[in-house]
Amino acid sequence: MLNLENTIERFKDLLTQNDEQLLKEELNNLHYADIAEIFEALTEEERLKSFNVLPEDDAAELLEFLSPQIQVEILSDLDEEKASRIILKMPHDSVADVLGDLDDSDSENYLNKLPERISNQIRELLSYPEDSAGGIMNSDVITVDKDMTVDEVVSFLRIKAETDKVELLYVYVTDKSGHLLGVLSLRSLFTTPPYVKVEDIMIKDLVKVHVDDDQEIAAETLSKYGILAVPVVDHYGKLKGIVTWDDAQDVVEEETTEEILQSSGIATDVVDEDEILQGPLLMAVRARTPWLLITLVGEFIAVTVAKYYHITLEALPLIAIFMPLLAGLGGNIGTQSITLMVRGLSTGQVTLSDALKQIWREMRVGILIGAAFGILVMFITWGWQHNITLGIVVGSAMALNMSLATVIGTVTPFMLKRINIDPAIASGPVIATTIDVLGLAVYFSLVTFSLKWLI
Amino acid sequence: MLNLENTIERFKDLLTQNDEQLLKEELNNLHYADIAEIFEALTEEERLKSFNVLPEDDAAELLEFLSPQIQVEILSDLDEEKASRIILKMPHDSVADVLGDLDDSDSENYLNKLPERISNQIRELLSYPEDSAGGIMNSDVITVDKDMTVDEVVSFLRIKAETDKVELLYVYVTDKSGHLLGVLSLRSLFTTPPYVKVEDIMIKDLVKVHVDDDQEIAAETLSKYGILAVPVVDHYGKLKGIVTWDDAQDVVEEETTEEILQSSGIATDVVDEDEILQGPLLMAVRARTPWLLITLVGEFIAVTVAKYYHITLEALPLIAIFMPLLAGLGGNIGTQSITLMVRGLSTGQVTLSDALKQIWREMRVGILIGAAFGILVMFITWGWQHNITLGIVVGSAMALNMSLATVIGTVTPFMLKRINIDPAIASGPVIATTIDVLGLAVYFSLVTFSLKWLI
Repeated sequence: MLNLENTIERFKDLLTQNDEQLLKEELNNLHYADIAEIFEALTEEERLKSFNVLPEDDAAELLEFLSPQIQVEILSDLDEEKASRIILKMPHDSVADVLGDLDDSDSENYLNKLPERISNQIRELLSYPEDSAGGIMNSDVITVDKDMTVDEVVSFLRIKAETDKVELLYVYVTDKSGHLLGVLSLRSLFTTPPYVKVEDIMIKDLVKVHVDDDQEIAAETLSKYGILAVPVVDHYGKLKGIVTWDDAQDVVEEETTEEILQSSGIATDVVDEDEILQGPLLMAVRARTPWLLITLVGEFIAVTVAKYYHITLEALPLIAIFMPLLAGLGGNIGTQSITLMVRGLSTGQVTLSDALKQIWREMRVGILIGAAFGILVMFITWGWQHNITLGIVVGSAMALNMSLATVIGTVTPFMLKRINIDPAIASGPVIATTIDVLGLAVYFSLVTFSLKWLI
Repeated sequence: MLNLENTIERFKDLLTQNDEQLLKEELNNLHYADIAEIFEALTEEERLKSFNVLPEDDAAELLEFLSPQIQVEILSDLDEEKASRIILKMPHDSVADVLGDLDDSDSENYLNKLPERISNQIRELLSYPEDSAGGIMNSDVITVDKDMTVDEVVSFLRIKAETDKVELLYVYVTDKSGHLLGVLSLRSLFTTPPYVKVEDIMIKDLVKVHVDDDQEIAAETLSKYGILAVPVVDHYGKLKGIVTWDDAQDVVEEETTEEILQSSGIATDVVDEDEILQGPLLMAVRARTPWLLITLVGEFIAVTVAKYYHITLEALPLIAIFMPLLAGLGGNIGTQSITLMVRGLSTGQVTLSDALKQIWREMRVGILIGAAFGILVMFITWGWQHNITLGIVVGSAMALNMSLATVIGTVTPFMLKRINIDPAIASGPVIATTIDVLGLAVYFSLVTFSLKWLI
């Protein structure tokens, strides 16, 4: 692999020396993906300078490897005429992505500069919701007519491959008005006699998605059926584009990020994930507040529970110091159970029909660890406070609390899933609070019950 | 899309009626991916019955779509001769995966039944660590000799495509002794005159990985360079296999799962992720205990802090009831910050050079939300306890605690990353405990300071 740090060093040197010739050579030797990584480490000015050294074809290819922020930055910094020429060389879906990230007026500006046929196609792509199959598809698809012969298709592809930069994964077969009829694998073109009509060798029973389908459905379809691209059709069954494996990869990454953020109580459904990290501050606040408010309500219930035992607390204030210990470990082991179940449900490693088996398993894990930690805490407390009763009370509370936490952490995701609520969204904060409330109740009951031996 | 529940119903009915002919037809109409989903919902007996209805070619294809557990189950239930015949029809990497999941004696049994050339190849695959590029690669690769012409390659591929089931993504070029020299895209075969030697059109400067490289490196290479397969070479530069996009997809899913589990303090480095959910109970305990022990130590520090203020606590035991409220909300908002940073660092949306910018941003988010919640809590406490000083103390502690928690939650992942510790592993439990300790210290200091106005 490339030693990126050294290359960045050398790169920065060349930029300072203003040696365009060497810079060009250096860029020529690197893969776009590597240049993109180097670009991340440069300043805005350095990026623009390096970008301008590249021939426009290469510049268009490189642009696709850059992050959306840097794409927008470079396009805004570039001379407008040049930017338009580069945009014209990019695949339509990438152009739609970049223009979608620009201000409306800037993106209109570029669209007006493009040839009408292309700007219409891109406008159509921009009209689909960003997270729909239509929003991520590429409308540059290679289609052939059902009446063509294998030989005709091969010649057609030969010409296409020379002139276009379209990715060649499958060949789709349509009728004269563009309705999707079937698909050809490249392999079948190799193995069929040249005079056969494609209609007779195409796979008719093909998997497809609808322009309005959620992007996640498109990605899941690719992964489930193990295919490299899925065709996207409109209401009339006309082929509008394809979603390819690399689009699907991006979707999976995005969905995973949402799942992870939601599990910590960040509402990615109200605020876009990029905005939370980079958008206006109030957007970040808005994404993070809802679940904190729910936690606030839950914790005030915990406060009420503790208040209920105020007589016990006043009789023996020392017992309060163990509250964080119990809450901390209960919360921790409970979170482990939630995380295991939520992730398992999301990858399919755990299913609803496993619920009882998993609950029973987690319960035993909880009891085992709870007992061990209970005994440990008992001895520590006893040794530290020289009070064996206190040791027993705190130790028992710990064991009960940890066992209880695993059960709640395991049962809740299954229950939510059963009533069709995404367990990733609601589990974390609600369960943590529930564990806090129940844990306190258990602890204070135990203390109250044993108070006469404690004082 | 397919209505899976109805299909499962119908399927189970056919199985009860023992109607093999209809069952065969039903299976024939379904994609393997759908059959695999139906199989998940059947009992072991029903699965075996349905599997036995399939022709052996289809059975081999279906097997690849099934989960490892069900693969092993079916192979163990099948007649051994039949199982061997089916294994022979599967790609080598899938066979190695299945045999790797069987008991050693069972897998030896099957290996001995296979033709020696194939069993040797599979033994070699089994010899690489499960999570290395060698361990996930497929050794069935289409290679051509550098001296072949384009025309010869096309004829060769035509024969290959008819007889073999090898996936055709790229064509690799080697010398006589198998050293990897370059790669051909299918596109280039379409567009080059037939008499040209492949040596002259192959891409020589190709990306590759080493058999011993971690599987994650192989997956990252595919994703970074946007390619469908990466060749895997040994120490001598000989081509040993390829890692394809679908292998990479599995790796990414596995690594994401590990990242998610680690963030909740489950040690996936000592116990394999499958074992935590399905292995012996003690393995699950072993994976979950280390971070709980660290939390235990941390929380005993929190207990010590609380104990330090025992005079305050004895003077006003009521203040203890607000401890879970402060710890709960501090923990919650801190976890949000950690999650945002850890995930951002892992996807590359946040980089080390952003550290200051992100810390400053999170700090302002924390102060904004902290102030709002502080004021809210102040009014609630005041209204509830009719004690404005208590309201002010609890409210200020809340504001300070939440602001502090965001800062700790943001700074720590960057610090860990800086010293090359994976922030996903260590962040969660350690930070939660730190927030607990500091939060308590802040709260009790405030209470102690204002004690004379509180009583």
